[in-house]
Amino acid sequence: MFVNRRDVQIQWGDCDPANIVYYPRYFSMFDDSTSVLFEKAGFSKQDLVHKYGLVGIPMVDTRAKFYIPSTHGDWITIETKIESIKRSSFEVKHNVYKTADLAIEAFETRVLVGRDPANPEKLKSAPFPAEMVTKFTGS
Amino acid sequence: MFVNRRDVQIQWGDCDPANIVYYPRYFSMFDDSTSVLFEKAGFSKQDLVHKYGLVGIPMVDTRAKFYIPSTHGDWITIETKIESIKRSSFEVKHNVYKTADLAIEAFETRVLVGRDPANPEKLKSAPFPAEMVTKFTGS
Amino acid sequence: MFVNRRDVQIQWGDCDPANIVYYPRYFSMFDDSTSVLFEKAGFSKQDLVHKYGLVGIPMVDTRAKFYIPSTHGDWITIETKIESIKRSSFEVKHNVYKTADLAIEAFETRVLVGRDPANPEKLKSAPFPAEMVTKFTGS
Amino acid sequence: MFVNRRDVQIQWGDCDPANIVYYPRYFSMFDDSTSVLFEKAGFSKQDLVHKYGLVGIPMVDTRAKFYIPSTHGDWITIETKIESIKRSSFEVKHNVYKTADLAIEAFETRVLVGRDPANPEKLKSAPFPAEMVTKFTGS
Repeated sequence: MFVNRRDVQIQWGDCDPANIVYYPRYFSMFDDSTSVLFEKAGFSKQDLVHKYGLVGIPMVDTRAKFYIPSTHGDWITIETKIESIKRSSFEVKHNVYKTADLAIEAFETRVLVGRDPANPEKLKSAPFPAEMVTKFTGS
Repeated sequence: MFVNRRDVQIQWGDCDPANIVYYPRYFSMFDDSTSVLFEKAGFSKQDLVHKYGLVGIPMVDTRAKFYIPSTHGDWITIETKIESIKRSSFEVKHNVYKTADLAIEAFETRVLVGRDPANPEKLKSAPFPAEMVTKFTGS
Repeated sequence: MFVNRRDVQIQWGDCDPANIVYYPRYFSMFDDSTSVLFEKAGFSKQDLVHKYGLVGIPMVDTRAKFYIPSTHGDWITIETKIESIKRSSFEVKHNVYKTADLAIEAFETRVLVGRDPANPEKLKSAPFPAEMVTKFTGS
Repeated sequence: MFVNRRDVQIQWGDCDPANIVYYPRYFSMFDDSTSVLFEKAGFSKQDLVHKYGLVGIPMVDTRAKFYIPSTHGDWITIETKIESIKRSSFEVKHNVYKTADLAIEAFETRVLVGRDPANPEKLKSAPFPAEMVTKFTGS
């Protein structure tokens, strides 16, 4: 299974008056991590758009469970992988670590979408290319 | 049960290159809605800090399910209520409507926290004041 | 001259650990205000794209001078107007008031852009439609 | 003179429906760059608060001039330095490069602030510690 790990330093502007990360900021970090996972696997967002004719990988369902808070200056490690792939939807899991401790778990159900041929203003789910399935699941 | 409804117009900067709302932005809108719910109930964040000696209502667990996308210029209605309250934790539900349609459901488990008397740099859960319980649950 | 005023309540998530607005958030508020100014004048961003064939009104040069800080719960009034229009560029001014006091002044030079016919991946400045000039400047 | 350079990859969520960076996002990147400059010089935000008793370095006046747009996947280099220091205010300059080209110039006037002894709810300018002046200006 293809896994990406990246280190992120929490910044002043990520934090709120309680001096901890304003939690919507974590969802931006997770979205970046999913994009980086695709890019590291050889499928950048630019490739999705220009090579595969897709529009994006919008979120269908996401959940995050917060165990340990962080503040500015802290470093966290975000570990990201795709846990399963169906025809056009897929499950992403993020584990956030502070040193050895699991600080946050996040879950995503996303879907590959392209333009609806019948109405290019609308989005429509698109099948997962076989080479992506192979790369992400290793099967 | 105390419910707050507010209308929000999606802005250009809320949207991504797929021309739909960048989903982390919704979590900011939901956080604002929870704050407004408290304020409308008579407990602003400033009151939480200065009158009740609390630090905030950090997120423990949150989930959102996205059914209908929106784009800039669209108006959505966010309907917010507290569904249950324990000693210091509580459950918030947001329903987002586009006209009559349910566009997003979001769920939050939050906790009231104050400073830890043993170490003011640390946060510690705090019991829900009785008057808040009464106001939010109507019982 | 066409002027728009709107009231904005500062939210918890707009503020940083110093308990004042994290200043990049003001630029989002100003961008929203410029969009609302266009919309109130009859030219929504959706109209710019679909009726006028434009892509947007990107920023060329912006400056903000901060005189009075604000915190969560505060209400500010953002007053926005277009001060001058050239062929495709224009000057926007935002005055932010807290009650009667001028809290922030912000200045924008923006340009109307469309797709470059020679390369639709590139942006190209576009002339200001006469009806917009008339509406904004009243002449 | 102490200079910091850091490479930043533009992310999907940094971009707007015109497929270029939503400019308020640059101000967050610049704020991060100023924080990193202080940290690299040996004065993290945590040190400012806990060692020097300060609250932060709020913005007084900032300006950015945008020459070349960027989109998701692009890498930019942000070069940051303090150009001058007065008693408690100082001037920061950011140059953003795309490969060899100057893409953005940004200017900041900030001020060191602490709590006002007469009213800890208020902020008050604080003198620049001599060791910081030495470190940043090399004199």
